[in-house]
Amino acid sequence: MPSISNKGQSMPESPIRKLVPFAEAARKKGKKIYQLNIGQPDIETPKVALDAVKNNDIDVLSYSHSAGFESYRNKLAKYYDKNDIPVDAEDIIVTTGGSEALLFAMGSITDPGDEIIIPEPFYANYNGFANSSGVNILPIRATIKDNFALPPISEFEKLITNKTKAILICNPGNPTGYLYTREEIEQLAELALKHDLFIVADEVYREFTYDGVKHHSIMSIPGLEENAIMVDSVSKRYSMCGARIGCLVSKNKEVMTTAMKFAQARLSPPTFAQIAAEAALNTPDSYFEEVNEEYTQRRNLLVEGLENIPGVNVAKPKGAFYCIAELPVKNADDFAKWLLEEFEHENETVMVAPAAGFYSTPNTGMNQVRIAYVLKKENLTRALNILKIALEEYNK
Amino acid sequence: MPSISNKGQSMPESPIRKLVPFAEAARKKGKKIYQLNIGQPDIETPKVALDAVKNNDIDVLSYSHSAGFESYRNKLAKYYDKNDIPVDAEDIIVTTGGSEALLFAMGSITDPGDEIIIPEPFYANYNGFANSSGVNILPIRATIKDNFALPPISEFEKLITNKTKAILICNPGNPTGYLYTREEIEQLAELALKHDLFIVADEVYREFTYDGVKHHSIMSIPGLEENAIMVDSVSKRYSMCGARIGCLVSKNKEVMTTAMKFAQARLSPPTFAQIAAEAALNTPDSYFEEVNEEYTQRRNLLVEGLENIPGVNVAKPKGAFYCIAELPVKNADDFAKWLLEEFEHENETVMVAPAAGFYSTPNTGMNQVRIAYVLKKENLTRALNILKIALEEYNK
Ligand SMILES: Cc1ncc(COP(=O)(O)O)c(C=O)c1O
Ligand SMILES: Cc1ncc(COP(=O)(O)O)c(C=O)c1O
Repeated sequence: MPSISNKGQSMPESPIRKLVPFAEAARKKGKKIYQLNIGQPDIETPKVALDAVKNNDIDVLSYSHSAGFESYRNKLAKYYDKNDIPVDAEDIIVTTGGSEALLFAMGSITDPGDEIIIPEPFYANYNGFANSSGVNILPIRATIKDNFALPPISEFEKLITNKTKAILICNPGNPTGYLYTREEIEQLAELALKHDLFIVADEVYREFTYDGVKHHSIMSIPGLEENAIMVDSVSKRYSMCGARIGCLVSKNKEVMTTAMKFAQARLSPPTFAQIAAEAALNTPDSYFEEVNEEYTQRRNLLVEGLENIPGVNVAKPKGAFYCIAELPVKNADDFAKWLLEEFEHENETVMVAPAAGFYSTPNTGMNQVRIAYVLKKENLTRALNILKIALEEYNK
Repeated sequence: MPSISNKGQSMPESPIRKLVPFAEAARKKGKKIYQLNIGQPDIETPKVALDAVKNNDIDVLSYSHSAGFESYRNKLAKYYDKNDIPVDAEDIIVTTGGSEALLFAMGSITDPGDEIIIPEPFYANYNGFANSSGVNILPIRATIKDNFALPPISEFEKLITNKTKAILICNPGNPTGYLYTREEIEQLAELALKHDLFIVADEVYREFTYDGVKHHSIMSIPGLEENAIMVDSVSKRYSMCGARIGCLVSKNKEVMTTAMKFAQARLSPPTFAQIAAEAALNTPDSYFEEVNEEYTQRRNLLVEGLENIPGVNVAKPKGAFYCIAELPVKNADDFAKWLLEEFEHENETVMVAPAAGFYSTPNTGMNQVRIAYVLKKENLTRALNILKIALEEYNK
């Protein structure tokens, strides 16, 4: 029997998938589960986007341009311009989700054995894309007591070698909810220029910022044009995760020419989804105001609720729709399994994502979980109550 | 300025894209171009597929299962069963085009430095996927005088080393139009079992076979279950290239578990497109009969037309919708450029794909072009006439 690749064998499993069989078993027993573990928003997709697909008049569903519809890229460039991201259509390649933009970015700037520095905890699928590209991730610890702010630049400098190609940040952060300040972005920019590194900024949660705090894009730093690469997506912005549209954005021509070759090899991004994404740009501002208000209320409810559970410590998120909480348990993995397998309160339980899977350093964040606030408020309240009762019972 | 990767630098450019700037310039001058160079069919997408998307009732466009809709995989398994491909839903991962299935296959079975043997000429994007995965392609020459039949097995054996992981075939072939016989597939199977290799069969043109000749899938060979990996796509079958739906199929559990990790990292295939692809399975048989009849007529017209041009030699295709023709020119690349830049007949010209880009061995197929018969018959006739006049003029 032929054998699979080492790369395939070491391909990490997604930390939020590991619990799925336990959840399925629990559901079979009739248990209701409040899912705090996934980043799938329950918000409705803007009607303009859905309607555009319904009203399409395609006869032959053909390949689009490998960089995506030109009309879409032109409108996207305008959207970015409004968001202090001065780019042109030619600086944009439309991709199949932000996921593919991450793959293209890594493929364009790294060779097997190269290194990328990423503040941890980080979006777990970065491991998968790095593994696909044969790249090593060097983590730098951000801490819950600092709300997961950028670690000191001196820590980055300690890790930089001639194999270091880039620093990857997620802003606002999944799983941390941290929103980098202008100062932090400028520090990273200075570091990148000093050491000739790329900064890849995953800004898929750009629109989700709270308390009136502004988002600062990596693309808005003057002088960083050749070093800055932005990854974006419509998945969260318009609650259209299933569209699978994202984009790779950079002013660096060499990067874009190279990424284009990857884009051409896979022919084109999905056509129906591009129609939806292009139309989504006409979403009225009121949609975002409502969505933002809803998430702000959910976040407040969640953070207060968590702070009221004895022994729980939470980093207050300023963006995205996740937070990391420290629980009064030794091993959050065991606890999360126990919640599904053994615990129930009025035949209900909750599902959380153990945070260790978001750390690259082994045995880190063992008592932490990531909680997504993608549930309606009444369900969040109920889930928080269940979590409180569960922790009491678990620690008895 | 930070530098891009060696991998990115050596990423090959698609051979059919190189001529695009010349075509654009010609169009700007008002020249009409008959495009014989691309595999984008002009056939209408089945109405059932397009209607299903129009009639969707999605509120929240969410991620699907990473392996694709379960309902779709169940129906796909039945479709395969009818086609002598005995597989279950769990042997299928729905991918973003056959392109992504090829990437997942390579990622799951090869590490950087490993080797894959491919009969040449072959679909040029295999180069891109191999390059992304750090894999080396070892070509084996198929020849026009044999209609591009499978080269002798002894030629494969000469190339097999401990780095060889797989043999990749395209059946029916792009760019050759060759359809492997049962005997050829069995020979490959025997070779794979003897040397513990995978056979990856790209069968995206399965439905396009002519003259009543049957397609033999790699999945239909008893005893090859652990070695066989099939790549498929709805792009050509239902003329829905822009959907971006394909799949990876294998009975080898280890391969599928590994490929699933790549699938999970990128979250899910596009939702609208899956709706279209699932509905497309209800396409009436009459659609395929008409399409097949149309392609048969086009092929006959094209092959006869080419054979009637002095000095042209053509391999008669039994499947897909391409053929390779040898032209009475020294360098088909120069000729193809000349067709766009300098030649015109009544302000019209043709665009062909120089075949050298489909060979991995340098300086091979220099006088060959790939011609796709994806145009209506009257246009094909016109294009053939133009090609004939052009060759006369070029060789004057
Ligand atoms: C931080 C981050 N980046 C990228 C992605 C990829 O999203 P998509 O491929 O749907 O655009 C996600 C999805 O959850 C994410 O959380
Ligand atoms: C031989 C072959 N394989 C795979 C593909 C990829 O097609 P898709 O990604 O649209 O399924 C093509 C497209 O032209 C092809 O010709």
